[in-house]
Amino acid sequence: MKPLQGVRVVDFTQVFAGPFCTYQLSLLGAEVIKIEAPGVGDTLRGYRHGAGDAMGGMGGSFISINAGKKSVAVNLKHASGKALLRRLIESGDVLVENFRNGVMDRHGFSWEACKAINPRLIYASLSGFGASGPFKDWPAFDHTMQAMTGMMSLNGEPGDPPMKVGFPVIDAFTGYVAAFGILAALRQRDGTGQGQFVDVSMFDASLVLMTSMVVPYLNAGEQPKQLGSRGYSGSPTSDLFRTRDGHISLGANTQTQYELLCRAIEASELIDDPRFATHAARIDNDVALRAALEAIFATDDADAWELRINAAGVPASKLRTVFEACGLPHLQERGLMLNTKMSQKDDRDVTVLNNGFRADWNGIDAPSPMLGQHTDEVLAGLGCSEAEIAALRQEGALG
Amino acid sequence: MKPLQGVRVVDFTQVFAGPFCTYQLSLLGAEVIKIEAPGVGDTLRGYRHGAGDAMGGMGGSFISINAGKKSVAVNLKHASGKALLRRLIESGDVLVENFRNGVMDRHGFSWEACKAINPRLIYASLSGFGASGPFKDWPAFDHTMQAMTGMMSLNGEPGDPPMKVGFPVIDAFTGYVAAFGILAALRQRDGTGQGQFVDVSMFDASLVLMTSMVVPYLNAGEQPKQLGSRGYSGSPTSDLFRTRDGHISLGANTQTQYELLCRAIEASELIDDPRFATHAARIDNDVALRAALEAIFATDDADAWELRINAAGVPASKLRTVFEACGLPHLQERGLMLNTKMSQKDDRDVTVLNNGFRADWNGIDAPSPMLGQHTDEVLAGLGCSEAEIAALRQEGALG
Repeated sequence: MKPLQGVRVVDFTQVFAGPFCTYQLSLLGAEVIKIEAPGVGDTLRGYRHGAGDAMGGMGGSFISINAGKKSVAVNLKHASGKALLRRLIESGDVLVENFRNGVMDRHGFSWEACKAINPRLIYASLSGFGASGPFKDWPAFDHTMQAMTGMMSLNGEPGDPPMKVGFPVIDAFTGYVAAFGILAALRQRDGTGQGQFVDVSMFDASLVLMTSMVVPYLNAGEQPKQLGSRGYSGSPTSDLFRTRDGHISLGANTQTQYELLCRAIEASELIDDPRFATHAARIDNDVALRAALEAIFATDDADAWELRINAAGVPASKLRTVFEACGLPHLQERGLMLNTKMSQKDDRDVTVLNNGFRADWNGIDAPSPMLGQHTDEVLAGLGCSEAEIAALRQEGALG
Repeated sequence: MKPLQGVRVVDFTQVFAGPFCTYQLSLLGAEVIKIEAPGVGDTLRGYRHGAGDAMGGMGGSFISINAGKKSVAVNLKHASGKALLRRLIESGDVLVENFRNGVMDRHGFSWEACKAINPRLIYASLSGFGASGPFKDWPAFDHTMQAMTGMMSLNGEPGDPPMKVGFPVIDAFTGYVAAFGILAALRQRDGTGQGQFVDVSMFDASLVLMTSMVVPYLNAGEQPKQLGSRGYSGSPTSDLFRTRDGHISLGANTQTQYELLCRAIEASELIDDPRFATHAARIDNDVALRAALEAIFATDDADAWELRINAAGVPASKLRTVFEACGLPHLQERGLMLNTKMSQKDDRDVTVLNNGFRADWNGIDAPSPMLGQHTDEVLAGLGCSEAEIAALRQEGALG
């Protein structure tokens, strides 16, 4: 038994943010029915990232966020296809879409139209700028939104040129916000019995993700600063340092943490050195302090420093690649990595990720669907006979 | 009526990730009771970001994620304080904590102990590495975790040195994951009647946020690449370009988008130019293409290009600062910016942010609490008389 068992999600989304949202719901046990265009499907199926090339409609990015879902290939533009989708929406609890504004309306599936079909429906819409406001019809991608929201302006050392965050952070967060909004709306419906509209925008979500840089500075009328690799506290010993074989990031904010750090690296002379004795002195002499620390760190490897400094209770992390991080034995005990197969017809092992929190009841029970794999099954569940399904396929309503 | 009306959250969290989590719940109508040490409180109260300096325990970062909560100042180490907290936990639906592993246990408030007090309790624990695995006792900050997980290695142009994401992205996302996990656990409890343990780690959450760089590459056995400011598609016209007065980020991935872009900027000669006629040719000649585009963009301002290119249906965003983004009139219609006061005793206007999705029922109804502002009110609600409260204060159990 999982929290969303019995919840049916009719999923019109494509590419990343939307499918990442419904993947989170799938991990909680929702039945996610992915509506795909016959013969084409979610364009992410063809994206070539990592293992994508050889997968034939099961690209590396696609399988990362579609495990556990069902795929139904229906032609949205065909009258019989539309009629089927209306029946599916009537049977559903949640609809999620990430088309540009106006597209669902044009197909006859606006929020108003869907509410008329199913008054208990939760309708979540993901878009660049949301369903209201002067920019509502503007398209957006993760990287353009990183420019729009100021996110690019925060990266780097003071004075560095603008630089993107190196992964599609806004896409992922926007999808997660939508999944959160849907859970909240389900609870609201439990109380009211009424459907809900959840309007999610990449722009809004980005500012929420950057709350710590947005709100304090907005209220003060100041621009937030570029901090390089230094932590939010601004402490000179909360930064990235070179070691013999790589880098280590330290988190010593307070005086206590600074002293623990110095003792852990057997450099207690740095505690009493007047240049470094107080937080204010360390800020004034941060170049000298970096030189003193890096001279010490040059005597051993990042791995060794990491163990020693963490053992003293001070946060310290060796700089790793994503690949090295994923290989850490620690993860084996976290239930984050889920094992499944490439698809029903391809039994290569693949790894996907859980929700990001550990509980007794989240995970997957099926690989990512092949295009149209569940068309017949889902239609049969709506009461369509085999003859009806064959006829619909014949007239081009189904894939 | 809001989705979490009637849900009581006993909130032991401090600083950012934990309070950001319970702030999301507060926006949904939960009663969040913030447990703070008498005389000290959440250390974020003293953080000096933006307007922080002058606020006396209401620092700029603090007010960004604590509006709508109640503050109860109780001494966790005092026997009568502990007894009060047990009563509060008995009355609650959710407990959230972000101490290091073992601290809640030492105070007598482990998951097992709390479940014995209240079998319906949802207990969410946020930490650097989670409640299991070899690193479970290691401390962490946002920036050290950015080194640990490989996030720093993804930023920048190919070959650039490691660089932090310019804002505490892991803290924020971990808090959001926890809020999502709590909503899921509440729904699970609706089904089972049983309390739930939700174990949230910054490490796990980071990998989920980077799913698009983690899963495809992990399955392929390859390292993800640094992309500079180019989009995830890798298309040369999905990148950042100079204009007369600044930069613009473009999102032209497909052939259709490329042609729409060229027409929008009145450069249709670039469509047929053999160096740029296909996606493959544009990748081979990306330096020449950038030069050709930047020569055109040099003739006008980013604002003008933004309007023109979006009107053609191609994503385009002027590079803005966070401050400029927050000032866009578009936001006025989104319901994201919420107006409140600095505190009950300080009527300066401040702006905070909503959940990041728009619905009919999320927002705040009170400013951030002063330390201990609701101690008497909450204790009275537990049935304590004024005389009892005075006695508890006398013996040092309360602030």
